[in-house]
Amino acid sequence: MKVELFKIPQRSPDDCTGLEQLIQAGAIAPEQIVAILGKTEGNGCVNDFTRGFATQTLKHYLSRWLSADALGNIVFVMSGGTEGVLSPHLNVFTRQPDPPDAVPRLGLVMGTAKTRPFQPHEIGTLTMISVVAEAVAEAIAQSGCPPEHIHFVQIKCPLLTAQQQSGSPVSSYQSMALSRGASALGVAIATGELSLSEIGTVDICKNYHLYSSVASTSSGVELQNCEIFVLGNAPTSTSSLIIGHSVMRHALDVLAVQEAIAQTGQPNPTIINLFAKAEADPSGQILNRRHTMLDDSDISHTRMARAVVGSVLASVVQDPMVYVSGGSEHQGPPGGGPVAAIVQISV
Amino acid sequence: MKVELFKIPQRSPDDCTGLEQLIQAGAIAPEQIVAILGKTEGNGCVNDFTRGFATQTLKHYLSRWLSADALGNIVFVMSGGTEGVLSPHLNVFTRQPDPPDAVPRLGLVMGTAKTRPFQPHEIGTLTMISVVAEAVAEAIAQSGCPPEHIHFVQIKCPLLTAQQQSGSPVSSYQSMALSRGASALGVAIATGELSLSEIGTVDICKNYHLYSSVASTSSGVELQNCEIFVLGNAPTSTSSLIIGHSVMRHALDVLAVQEAIAQTGQPNPTIINLFAKAEADPSGQILNRRHTMLDDSDISHTRMARAVVGSVLASVVQDPMVYVSGGSEHQGPPGGGPVAAIVQISV
Amino acid sequence: MKVELFKIPQRSPDDCTGLEQLIQAGAIAPEQIVAILGKTEGNGCVNDFTRGFATQTLKHYLSRWLSADALGNIVFVMSGGTEGVLSPHLNVFTRQPDPPDAVPRLGLVMGTAKTRPFQPHEIGTLTMISVVAEAVAEAIAQSGCPPEHIHFVQIKCPLLTAQQQSGSPVSSYQSMALSRGASALGVAIATGELSLSEIGTVDICKNYHLYSSVASTSSGVELQNCEIFVLGNAPTSTSSLIIGHSVMRHALDVLAVQEAIAQTGQPNPTIINLFAKAEADPSGQILNRRHTMLDDSDISHTRMARAVVGSVLASVVQDPMVYVSGGSEHQGPPGGGPVAAIVQISV
Amino acid sequence: MKVELFKIPQRSPDDCTGLEQLIQAGAIAPEQIVAILGKTEGNGCVNDFTRGFATQTLKHYLSRWLSADALGNIVFVMSGGTEGVLSPHLNVFTRQPDPPDAVPRLGLVMGTAKTRPFQPHEIGTLTMISVVAEAVAEAIAQSGCPPEHIHFVQIKCPLLTAQQQSGSPVSSYQSMALSRGASALGVAIATGELSLSEIGTVDICKNYHLYSSVASTSSGVELQNCEIFVLGNAPTSTSSLIIGHSVMRHALDVLAVQEAIAQTGQPNPTIINLFAKAEADPSGQILNRRHTMLDDSDISHTRMARAVVGSVLASVVQDPMVYVSGGSEHQGPPGGGPVAAIVQISV
Repeated sequence: MKVELFKIPQRSPDDCTGLEQLIQAGAIAPEQIVAILGKTEGNGCVNDFTRGFATQTLKHYLSRWLSADALGNIVFVMSGGTEGVLSPHLNVFTRQPDPPDAVPRLGLVMGTAKTRPFQPHEIGTLTMISVVAEAVAEAIAQSGCPPEHIHFVQIKCPLLTAQQQSGSPVSSYQSMALSRGASALGVAIATGELSLSEIGTVDICKNYHLYSSVASTSSGVELQNCEIFVLGNAPTSTSSLIIGHSVMRHALDVLAVQEAIAQTGQPNPTIINLFAKAEADPSGQILNRRHTMLDDSDISHTRMARAVVGSVLASVVQDPMVYVSGGSEHQGPPGGGPVAAIVQISV
Repeated sequence: MKVELFKIPQRSPDDCTGLEQLIQAGAIAPEQIVAILGKTEGNGCVNDFTRGFATQTLKHYLSRWLSADALGNIVFVMSGGTEGVLSPHLNVFTRQPDPPDAVPRLGLVMGTAKTRPFQPHEIGTLTMISVVAEAVAEAIAQSGCPPEHIHFVQIKCPLLTAQQQSGSPVSSYQSMALSRGASALGVAIATGELSLSEIGTVDICKNYHLYSSVASTSSGVELQNCEIFVLGNAPTSTSSLIIGHSVMRHALDVLAVQEAIAQTGQPNPTIINLFAKAEADPSGQILNRRHTMLDDSDISHTRMARAVVGSVLASVVQDPMVYVSGGSEHQGPPGGGPVAAIVQISV
Repeated sequence: MKVELFKIPQRSPDDCTGLEQLIQAGAIAPEQIVAILGKTEGNGCVNDFTRGFATQTLKHYLSRWLSADALGNIVFVMSGGTEGVLSPHLNVFTRQPDPPDAVPRLGLVMGTAKTRPFQPHEIGTLTMISVVAEAVAEAIAQSGCPPEHIHFVQIKCPLLTAQQQSGSPVSSYQSMALSRGASALGVAIATGELSLSEIGTVDICKNYHLYSSVASTSSGVELQNCEIFVLGNAPTSTSSLIIGHSVMRHALDVLAVQEAIAQTGQPNPTIINLFAKAEADPSGQILNRRHTMLDDSDISHTRMARAVVGSVLASVVQDPMVYVSGGSEHQGPPGGGPVAAIVQISV
Repeated sequence: MKVELFKIPQRSPDDCTGLEQLIQAGAIAPEQIVAILGKTEGNGCVNDFTRGFATQTLKHYLSRWLSADALGNIVFVMSGGTEGVLSPHLNVFTRQPDPPDAVPRLGLVMGTAKTRPFQPHEIGTLTMISVVAEAVAEAIAQSGCPPEHIHFVQIKCPLLTAQQQSGSPVSSYQSMALSRGASALGVAIATGELSLSEIGTVDICKNYHLYSSVASTSSGVELQNCEIFVLGNAPTSTSSLIIGHSVMRHALDVLAVQEAIAQTGQPNPTIINLFAKAEADPSGQILNRRHTMLDDSDISHTRMARAVVGSVLASVVQDPMVYVSGGSEHQGPPGGGPVAAIVQISV
């Protein structure tokens, strides 16, 4: 299967004109779309409806060509928050049979999966971890990439609104972290980075030494289940693209960004996009300097963390249209997070 | 002892001109000041430095007349947040010996106290509750008012910054609630509303059916101990003022505001000030209608709760210069809170 | 024509379940819907996409029954911002032929109209005022109510995003005010409150002594033209409802709210909804007390103004599900705004 | 005169412990302090009282050693806003007579000046520009550096609060921009970058092709005049430091940051601090990609701009304790701004 990626600017959450142009031009065939990963311009927190608005618009638009069943197979992951220089866009992943004359070589492969819907009381639990781990394993198997060669696993997971969590000790905002954290631990199990027996209930969103180096999870009010896609390289690929990744040890880890790009092995690479997770260092310090993100009661620290990591990535590639998602619980080390680069194969 | 209250507008947190005028005019004698309760114009949350700025300014200003020891006896309670129509101001409470010709009658009395500083790990615990209860009992005894006739207990309590709570599961913002909640439960014990044996660790900021009807607690980064004053009526008073109170059952409980005023028994009362606590109803509903304060990730719900209750109180007395403080954990029933009125004795 | 109003709670901007129930129950016939006025839970400012999300969802939902032409005739006005106690909801106005046995009496009538799309440079100009005035006059004529008996004119008008106004001296946020202000002045001309010759370019969003007492205008990124509906009473009505209005002189003007209700002449009225405009008093003072809304750089003053007026209205009727929209330029006097009440006819 | 710079972390706006340690250790002599440039943790906008709080605290602290006159000669410039990774700190500049054995070489020199207080109606006018230009010229003359070799001019300028600008068409927030812009144009005249005859009233905060490459201006509520210091290199210096500068053409201009450092001519330089201005590109685009900072009504774009440029500078030097101030009207080209580096002389 040949996987490709198209990065498309959006003027607003309900803007399909860029996608429309590529479809009209024949570059994208609607039935080949397997996943759409978007960066929308809401606050990226509980009451961010730009994610749902974008998803609704895309589904409605694509229903011109696709049946409800076919639409239901596409993984929609909208991540809110384009703070700072981040520029709203869609990443449209397509997959099609290998062209007859294609010569396989090491390159991008992908798989997708969806979990069952979660009950409110399951969010952020060992149950959620297990269910996610199974679905990620399924997506990995579909991709044809060995688990240890997976470079990036993206999950969209649910959260609890005030109404859903009424009476519970968990706030809506906290439920976002728990959902992201449990999903990331599910990835770690599927990739073999951790085993389920190493994780206790008390570790979830507490013991951040347990993490996945390839998980990227975003929570949103617009779904009740988890939607998943995995990316890796395999020698059977006929894609024009290849992926690399690294782990940012802190929000200013420029070297890790450069490593992720270098890992693709392409000289003077043409970068399609970077993908990273961001969080305000929970220690209250970055590089031994105090930061104020966790004590600022006017701006959510996840918003600020996206602004920081977005600026760092954008300054490396001199392109603000990069994908940075906030809240990296169990995704990379505390204060850091995974970063991946998808570039064109030039050699 | 004769207690009086002066409500003084502030143009900024470091504005002493109103106080200066009253001192110059002889209305206030600096050495008679026992407590200053301010409403300052910060965000009322973790990084609100207007409270410390106002306190520093007042202490510096009053040091012209008062020794460090005398200054140390004054209770400074600065509560941040003047959202909506709320207007920044100081409530200066003075106490002086009974004038020789004064005839005692039922009227305002007050007492003050301070606790020892708390360790970070004590914030929001049974230990804090006990220590606060003892200090409140001391202030009540000083006031000469029987515990069951206390109408209002104001406490300023500490919080944890990101640096202080590093490694702890409690965020800075959560520490504000825990500190307020434990302080309020301490009040309930001192007034006899609850007994310590009724309260378990698990109840703190969880079981909101346990509450005081007269506690008003505010947390701030600017102190490590609790500063306390209590207000009640006693037949031995020579004050020109009298206090009444009630409990708002929800944020729109206009009747409770009117009851607090009516309880003072003054026809056509001249109201000096109203004092109330506010919180976004934790059920996510007010009067069976959904509210969005708890899911709004851009504005802290404590800020919105102050705007709401401030508007309600101000609309009743047609004066926006009222005292409303946010976060009413264990202060009145969930979604509601105590309200007190200090009015002039006219009969 | 018989006009009715249904107030329907919304759980989220894309929630149609309440409307669905009324349609399924036969209470609302889709083809009788003439206007939907919603209060959605975004920030009510430039980047509030909840308005567009709600509109898109409603149009998509109603397209089950209505042709594109029929849908195009419905006026959709989504006003963002449910700060404080305000509760998200839809006001669905229906209009149907008079029932054969109906006896006309003084009651609610309505008319609708839409302007042509505006060019970016026309927003907030005399041209916009004229075009709006014509369309409002058309809606009034349609309603069958004399201009001087109109009680409420609702307009949804456009704004300029950063991209549209690039190079212009007007910011996106300012364009919202200019669009609302010019639309309101258009209303004043149509109702005869002002004549076009009284208004100069320099008056727009400057001279607030020029205003309409019945205009309620909201700007949004989701449209380029103005959508309008007008409400009044006429003796030919067969509606079960009647409307009254008054003008709040300031944000705490409880009396005006009571007057609007009393004007309907119904004893113990069952109130369907209140409709009001809100703004932070541009003088920086309310009832001679300083407010801080205009100097708070963390929360838009329009958000706070809605919280205040929403709390005041809700406290009067003890129902937080009222309609309050922010930004009352040329809608009532500075710091105040129109308020209308629609109640059931009981006598 | 020998100029030195000490960068001191602050735990809060009223934290003097770092300064205290350096004074106790003899590294800083209070009477040699000529300017303190601070980065405080408020919102950096109108209602940021952390600036005044820090200044009041520092003045009070230094009054132990310095007379009121001596204190009055120190230039205090507090710039609010430590968004993202920026870390609150003070830059303490000292000046002392040349040590007897010092050998002059090219290095850091500085001068200071203060303007008269401005009337509210003068903020942002040609009058302000002229008055500032004169004072900057005075500071330059004092520094002993030729105007064309000046690398950095820092000005703290006033703003208008809602009360001060009542009735004026300028909002508080806009007055910050006008004050910064006029001050920067004053710098351009003093340095010879522009002449007064080139600037019309209509150009102020409109025509951004007129700018200074070395101006850095911050407005605040805590003063009515402008406080100024200038930095340059001169061959007569006995400082251990040297300064370089460049102009960032956009917020992600990493090369300009590296140029500013390289311009100091020091191999493997030990960087004391970087100083830069930041603004959200008024075109709505950065590097041809749309940004959403100007349309985000929940977070001031100046806050986001600081987060971005702070992240970029910090990523270059791997130190988040850098000085970035928001609002670069007439300070560098639109969307960009000056950047300066002070490093130790190693050769």
